[in-house]
Amino acid sequence: MEYKALNLKNKFNLFNDKWSPKVIAEINNYQFKLAKLKGDFQWHSHKDSDEAFLVIEGDLRIDFKDGYVNLSKGEMYVVPKGIEHKPSASEEVEIMLIEPKGIVNTGDLAPNNLTAKNDIWI
Amino acid sequence: MEYKALNLKNKFNLFNDKWSPKVIAEINNYQFKLAKLKGDFQWHSHKDSDEAFLVIEGDLRIDFKDGYVNLSKGEMYVVPKGIEHKPSASEEVEIMLIEPKGIVNTGDLAPNNLTAKNDIWI
Repeated sequence: MEYKALNLKNKFNLFNDKWSPKVIAEINNYQFKLAKLKGDFQWHSHKDSDEAFLVIEGDLRIDFKDGYVNLSKGEMYVVPKGIEHKPSASEEVEIMLIEPKGIVNTGDLAPNNLTAKNDIWI
Repeated sequence: MEYKALNLKNKFNLFNDKWSPKVIAEINNYQFKLAKLKGDFQWHSHKDSDEAFLVIEGDLRIDFKDGYVNLSKGEMYVVPKGIEHKPSASEEVEIMLIEPKGIVNTGDLAPNNLTAKNDIWI
Protein backbone atom coordinates (compact mmCIF):
# COMPACT_ATOMS: atom_id res chain seq x y z
CA MET A 1 0.00 0.00 0.00
CA GLU A 2 1.05 3.58 -0.55
CA TYR A 3 1.35 5.70 2.58
CA LYS A 4 0.69 9.40 2.27
CA ALA A 5 3.32 12.08 2.73
CA LEU A 6 2.52 15.22 4.71
CA ASN A 7 2.62 18.03 2.19
CA LEU A 8 3.34 21.30 3.97
CA LYS A 9 1.78 23.54 1.31
CA ASN A 10 -1.42 21.49 1.31
CA LYS A 11 -1.56 21.75 5.07
CA PHE A 12 -1.10 25.54 4.97
CA ASN A 13 -4.05 25.73 2.59
CA LEU A 14 -6.30 24.31 5.32
CA PHE A 15 -6.26 27.38 7.56
CA ASN A 16 -5.83 31.09 7.50
CA ASP A 17 -5.89 32.30 11.09
CA LYS A 18 -2.72 33.92 12.37
CA TRP A 19 -0.66 33.11 15.49
CA SER A 20 -2.51 29.85 15.97
CA PRO A 21 -0.20 26.85 15.49
CA LYS A 22 -1.69 23.65 14.07
CA VAL A 23 -0.13 20.25 14.73
CA ILE A 24 0.69 18.16 11.66
CA ALA A 25 2.96 15.46 13.13
CA GLU A 26 4.52 14.10 16.29
CA ILE A 27 7.73 12.28 17.03
CA ASN A 28 7.71 10.82 20.50
CA ASN A 29 6.59 13.75 22.65
CA TYR A 30 7.63 16.45 20.20
CA GLN A 31 5.31 18.18 17.77
CA PHE A 32 5.60 19.76 14.34
CA LYS A 33 3.27 22.74 14.11
CA LEU A 34 2.45 25.03 11.20
CA ALA A 35 1.55 28.66 11.77
CA LYS A 36 0.82 31.76 9.75
CA LEU A 37 2.06 34.98 11.30
CA LYS A 38 1.54 38.61 10.43
CA GLY A 39 2.25 41.68 12.49
CA ASP A 40 3.84 41.68 15.94
CA PHE A 41 3.56 38.97 18.57
CA GLN A 42 4.11 39.50 22.30
CA TRP A 43 7.41 39.36 24.13
CA HIS A 44 7.55 36.02 25.90
CA SER A 45 9.80 33.09 26.79
CA HIS A 46 9.51 29.35 27.38
CA LYS A 47 11.32 28.58 30.58
CA ASP A 48 11.52 24.82 30.12
CA SER A 49 12.26 24.34 26.42
CA ASP A 50 14.14 25.52 23.38
CA GLU A 51 11.96 26.28 20.36
CA ALA A 52 12.82 25.79 16.69
CA PHE A 53 11.48 28.07 13.93
CA LEU A 54 11.73 27.05 10.27
CA VAL A 55 10.46 29.46 7.61
CA ILE A 56 8.54 27.73 4.82
CA GLU A 57 7.42 30.86 2.94
CA GLY A 58 8.03 34.56 3.54
CA ASP A 59 10.18 36.44 6.01
CA LEU A 60 10.21 36.31 9.79
CA ARG A 61 11.97 38.53 12.28
CA ILE A 62 12.61 37.48 15.85
CA ASP A 63 13.63 40.19 18.28
CA PHE A 64 15.63 39.49 21.40
CA LYS A 65 16.44 41.87 24.19
CA ASP A 66 19.97 42.23 22.80
CA GLY A 67 19.40 41.88 19.07
CA TYR A 68 17.38 40.17 16.38
CA VAL A 69 17.48 37.56 13.64
CA ASN A 70 15.91 37.71 10.18
CA LEU A 71 14.76 34.42 8.69
CA SER A 72 13.83 33.86 5.06
CA LYS A 73 12.40 30.80 3.30
CA GLY A 74 14.59 27.77 3.98
CA GLU A 75 16.14 29.27 7.09
CA MET A 76 15.78 28.21 10.72
CA TYR A 77 16.67 29.37 14.18
CA VAL A 78 16.56 27.85 17.64
CA VAL A 79 15.45 30.15 20.45
CA PRO A 80 17.05 28.84 23.64
CA LYS A 81 14.85 28.19 26.63
CA GLY A 82 14.30 31.13 28.91
CA ILE A 83 15.25 33.72 26.28
CA GLU A 84 12.69 36.46 25.78
CA HIS A 85 11.74 36.83 22.13
CA LYS A 86 9.17 38.58 19.96
CA PRO A 87 8.37 37.16 16.51
CA SER A 88 7.07 39.58 13.90
CA ALA A 89 6.39 39.69 10.19
CA SER A 90 5.55 42.75 8.09
CA GLU A 91 3.94 40.45 5.49
CA GLU A 92 2.34 37.08 6.15
CA VAL A 93 4.89 34.34 6.79
CA GLU A 94 4.40 30.58 6.95
CA ILE A 95 6.50 28.78 9.51
CA MET A 96 6.99 25.38 11.08
CA LEU A 97 7.61 25.17 14.82
CA ILE A 98 9.25 22.14 16.39
CA GLU A 99 8.97 21.82 20.15
CA PRO A 100 7.78 19.50 22.91
CA LYS A 101 4.09 18.78 23.21
CA GLY A 102 2.37 21.16 25.62
CA ILE A 103 4.38 24.30 24.91
CA VAL A 104 2.07 27.30 25.01
CA ASN A 105 2.61 29.88 22.27
CA THR A 106 2.57 32.82 24.66
CA GLY A 107 5.00 31.06 26.99
CA ASP A 108 5.16 32.36 30.52
CA LEU A 109 2.68 35.20 29.99
CA ALA A 110 -0.73 35.12 31.61
CA PRO A 111 -3.21 33.62 29.12
CA ASN A 112 -4.51 36.35 26.83
CA ASN A 113 -6.20 36.97 23.49
CA LEU A 114 -3.17 35.66 21.59
CA THR A 115 -2.85 32.46 23.61
CA ALA A 116 -3.63 29.60 21.23
CA LYS A 117 -5.18 26.27 22.12
CA ASN A 118 -2.75 23.37 21.96
CA ASP A 119 -3.14 20.08 20.09
CA ILE A 120 -5.23 21.42 17.24
CA TRP A 121 -4.43 18.92 14.49
CA ILE A 122 -4.98 19.53 10.81
CA MET B 1 23.38 42.75 17.31
CA GLU B 2 22.17 40.64 14.41
CA TYR B 3 22.03 36.92 15.06
CA LYS B 4 22.56 34.61 12.12
CA ALA B 5 19.89 32.33 10.68
CA LEU B 6 20.73 28.75 9.74
CA ASN B 7 20.38 28.63 5.97
CA LEU B 8 19.68 25.05 4.90
CA LYS B 9 20.98 25.48 1.34
CA ASN B 10 24.23 26.99 2.58
CA LYS B 11 24.64 24.09 4.97
CA PHE B 12 24.04 21.54 2.21
CA ASN B 13 26.82 23.21 0.22
CA LEU B 14 29.29 22.30 2.96
CA PHE B 15 29.32 18.55 2.30
CA ASN B 16 28.77 16.02 -0.40
CA ASP B 17 29.05 12.60 1.20
CA LYS B 18 25.93 10.46 1.14
CA TRP B 19 24.12 8.70 4.00
CA SER B 20 26.10 10.67 6.57
CA PRO B 21 23.85 13.01 8.56
CA LYS B 22 25.34 16.30 9.80
CA VAL B 23 23.93 18.13 12.80
CA ILE B 24 22.96 21.77 12.27
CA ALA B 25 20.89 22.50 15.38
CA GLU B 26 19.60 21.11 18.66
CA ILE B 27 16.49 21.74 20.71
CA ASN B 28 16.80 20.25 24.14
CA ASN B 29 17.99 16.69 23.45
CA TYR B 30 16.69 16.56 19.88
CA GLN B 31 18.78 17.20 16.79
CA PHE B 32 18.21 18.58 13.30
CA LYS B 33 20.42 16.76 10.83
CA LEU B 34 20.96 17.29 7.12
CA ALA B 35 21.79 14.40 4.83
CA LYS B 36 22.28 13.73 1.14
CA LEU B 37 21.06 10.35 -0.02
CA LYS B 38 21.40 8.49 -3.29
CA GLY B 39 20.75 4.85 -4.02
CA ASP B 40 19.42 2.32 -1.54
CA PHE B 41 19.95 2.29 2.21
CA GLN B 42 19.66 -0.76 4.43
CA TRP B 43 16.50 -2.09 6.03
CA HIS B 44 16.59 -1.07 9.67
CA SER B 45 14.50 0.24 12.55
CA HIS B 46 14.95 2.40 15.64
CA LYS B 47 13.38 0.58 18.52
CA ASP B 48 13.26 3.50 20.94
CA SER B 49 12.28 6.47 18.78
CA ASP B 50 10.16 7.80 15.98
CA GLU B 51 12.09 9.53 13.20
CA ALA B 52 10.98 12.49 11.08
CA PHE B 53 12.06 12.94 7.45
CA LEU B 54 11.58 16.29 5.67
CA VAL B 55 12.59 16.58 2.02
CA ILE B 56 14.35 19.85 1.21
CA GLU B 57 15.23 19.07 -2.44
CA GLY B 58 14.56 16.07 -4.63
CA ASP B 59 12.55 12.92 -4.14
CA LEU B 60 12.79 10.28 -1.44
CA ARG B 61 11.14 6.89 -1.21
CA ILE B 62 10.80 5.02 2.05
CA ASP B 63 9.87 1.36 1.85
CA PHE B 64 8.11 -0.47 4.64
CA LYS B 65 7.43 -4.17 4.90
CA ASP B 66 3.80 -3.51 3.93
CA GLY B 67 4.11 -0.55 1.58
CA TYR B 68 5.99 2.64 0.82
CA VAL B 69 5.78 6.41 0.82
CA ASN B 70 7.09 8.86 -1.79
CA LEU B 71 8.22 12.24 -0.52
CA SER B 72 8.93 15.27 -2.67
CA LYS B 73 10.31 18.70 -1.77
CA GLY B 74 8.27 20.24 1.02
CA GLU B 75 6.89 16.91 2.21
CA MET B 76 7.55 15.05 5.44
CA TYR B 77 6.86 11.70 7.05
CA VAL B 78 7.27 10.26 10.52
CA VAL B 79 8.49 6.68 10.71
CA PRO B 80 7.17 5.23 13.97
CA LYS B 81 9.59 3.58 16.35
CA GLY B 82 10.21 -0.08 15.75
CA ILE B 83 9.01 0.01 12.14
CA GLU B 84 11.44 -1.44 9.63
CA HIS B 85 12.13 0.95 6.78
CA LYS B 86 14.47 1.39 3.84
CA PRO B 87 15.06 4.89 2.44
CA SER B 88 16.12 5.14 -1.20
CA ALA B 89 16.52 7.77 -3.88
CA SER B 90 17.11 7.20 -7.58
CA GLU B 91 18.62 10.70 -7.83
CA GLU B 92 20.35 12.62 -5.06
CA VAL B 93 17.93 13.96 -2.46
CA GLU B 94 18.55 16.47 0.33
CA ILE B 95 16.69 15.80 3.54
CA MET B 96 16.42 16.99 7.10
CA LEU B 97 16.07 14.42 9.87
CA ILE B 98 14.64 15.34 13.26
CA GLU B 99 15.20 12.85 16.06
CA PRO B 100 16.64 12.51 19.54
CA LYS B 101 20.37 12.88 20.01
CA GLY B 102 22.18 9.56 19.85
CA ILE B 103 20.03 7.85 17.22
CA VAL B 104 22.26 5.76 14.97
CA ASN B 105 21.47 5.95 11.25
CA THR B 106 21.56 2.18 10.78
CA GLY B 107 19.36 1.63 13.81
CA ASP B 108 19.43 -1.80 15.33
CA LEU B 109 21.77 -3.31 12.73
CA ALA B 110 25.28 -4.31 13.68
CA PRO B 111 27.61 -1.40 12.86
CA ASN B 112 28.67 -1.62 9.21
CA ASN B 113 30.10 0.43 6.35
CA LEU B 114 26.98 2.63 6.19
CA THR B 115 26.89 3.36 9.92
CA ALA B 116 27.61 7.08 10.29
CA LYS B 117 29.30 8.79 13.20
CA ASN B 118 26.96 10.83 15.34
CA ASP B 119 27.32 14.45 16.42
CA ILE B 120 29.16 15.66 13.34
CA TRP B 121 28.23 19.35 13.28
CA ILE B 122 28.51 21.59 10.27
